[in-house]
Amino acid sequence: MQWYFVAALLTVLTSSQLAVSSLLLWKECKKSPLPKMTTEWKTVSLFPIPSVIYLIHNNVQFATLTYVDTSTYQILGNLKIVTTGILFRLFLGRRLSNLQWMAIVLLAVGTTTSQVRGCGEASCDSIFSAPIQGYMLGVLSACLSALAGIYTEFLMKKNNDSLYWQNIQLYTFGTFFNMARLLADDFRGGFENGPWWQRIFNGYTITTWMVVLNLGSTGLLVSWLMKHADNIVKVYSTSMAMLLTMILSLFLFNFKPTLQLFLGIIICMMSLHMYFAPPNLLLDKPLTVKLDEEKLIEVSIDRRTLS
Amino acid sequence: MQWYFVAALLTVLTSSQLAVSSLLLWKECKKSPLPKMTTEWKTVSLFPIPSVIYLIHNNVQFATLTYVDTSTYQILGNLKIVTTGILFRLFLGRRLSNLQWMAIVLLAVGTTTSQVRGCGEASCDSIFSAPIQGYMLGVLSACLSALAGIYTEFLMKKNNDSLYWQNIQLYTFGTFFNMARLLADDFRGGFENGPWWQRIFNGYTITTWMVVLNLGSTGLLVSWLMKHADNIVKVYSTSMAMLLTMILSLFLFNFKPTLQLFLGIIICMMSLHMYFAPPNLLLDKPLTVKLDEEKLIEVSIDRRTLS
Repeated sequence: MQWYFVAALLTVLTSSQLAVSSLLLWKECKKSPLPKMTTEWKTVSLFPIPSVIYLIHNNVQFATLTYVDTSTYQILGNLKIVTTGILFRLFLGRRLSNLQWMAIVLLAVGTTTSQVRGCGEASCDSIFSAPIQGYMLGVLSACLSALAGIYTEFLMKKNNDSLYWQNIQLYTFGTFFNMARLLADDFRGGFENGPWWQRIFNGYTITTWMVVLNLGSTGLLVSWLMKHADNIVKVYSTSMAMLLTMILSLFLFNFKPTLQLFLGIIICMMSLHMYFAPPNLLLDKPLTVKLDEEKLIEVSIDRRTLS
Repeated sequence: MQWYFVAALLTVLTSSQLAVSSLLLWKECKKSPLPKMTTEWKTVSLFPIPSVIYLIHNNVQFATLTYVDTSTYQILGNLKIVTTGILFRLFLGRRLSNLQWMAIVLLAVGTTTSQVRGCGEASCDSIFSAPIQGYMLGVLSACLSALAGIYTEFLMKKNNDSLYWQNIQLYTFGTFFNMARLLADDFRGGFENGPWWQRIFNGYTITTWMVVLNLGSTGLLVSWLMKHADNIVKVYSTSMAMLLTMILSLFLFNFKPTLQLFLGIIICMMSLHMYFAPPNLLLDKPLTVKLDEEKLIEVSIDRRTLS
């Protein structure tokens, strides 16, 4: 049932995103210069891969949740920040300074800190007490999720095709895979509830549509980020959004502020500054900087004398 | 009673430290060159001040504990790390880079994280729920404790007197102030239990002597640190010692490891690396460093052309 619900929601989601992207591409086609669209099979054939990774990832997610509780699962999810950094370095060949690596680890530590359950909350001794398979699947899940992100960035930046054309390719394959899953499910159940397209909107309320709108627009924004920024920017924005949600929940739902949320926010802010601030701002120490500059001039003079 | 116990322990402590320092100075005097000892009143008169600050600090500590519980008190104690950084800058005029400031804040955040109580522990909703006076006194306590540290560093580094001679001055005044407190207590109580020197070792067990030995040698090591390193090094070593104690407790007393201890350790290690690692190690990014060097050479060439 849960499985059907996820596949059905994803079908609605990807087809909405496909529709919006098509509309945007159509508007772009009416302007000049015409958007760039590569249609050769060698390029198009790369676009089903993210869908395949996400399909595997979803299965691993469900498997993980049979071993660990949702709270441990949420905490394991922060590993994605670190695995994204590692794959970013390995597959996209982007070099990070030591300080930036430390910032990435701190971001993961900060988001985890904010999620540590305070005392007095229910179901306590579950962290570190789940079977080892649960943690291994959690790590695998973090790797797959990071891989999908990194691969999408690679696809989006591979050529300067129109973003909307790239989206259309991504979402066409996405919609196709999700529909195939629903159909396979129907065959397995012998069509006893009728085919999936007759009941896909069953139980949809205004809230469900709001969720589709929210997830759909987030997805489109993320693919914009992949094209014009990178996975690390995405990881930071996701974490900041999570903290902001937690802060808003304090006011909207009268939640009690915890010390760990406060500490988590400080850690994430430090990490943000460490990753993005220009190095000279971080190391600016009025007296010594002047000294270093003098030294560097001497060094360069020596070099010129040598050559 | 608690008050008497603290004053009695401090008297035993400072007089033992005084004895050890005198012995070490006497041994130093037999070697050549003779240890440097400034005996003019202008210098000696600065040495009672740390004792006075510690006396006030002790009073503030007791006052704080009437408003907040010991666990909140322990967490407020981490503020000392940040106040030490601030006073280090203000009174000793030591410049820190932005990164080093961030490292200091992270160290305080890290030690606090490791102390956050896990779920299931007793007396839960006390953090953020004590009266405001408690927090203000906690901040004052952190400032006084940092001030005493900074002032001691200033004293120890003011001239190149023998460390043992400086210790003797510190501990003579310390012993004097503690004895005065005990005597004042006796007068207030009308000597009903006899004078303090007749019962100072009452109830001393082997454990008590171990505590005196531990605190006494720590004190001597700290004054060595103040002379040859600085307050920030002290703050880092204290924090690392605390974490090490927590890790050892896991094994020795079969404590359950908490996620927050694990997170706290990572944060403190990052902070340590950020504060002490050489900047070029932190920012080393093979490709861009080469670029920067090229640029700097150009800049320096321009400068030479201009002059």
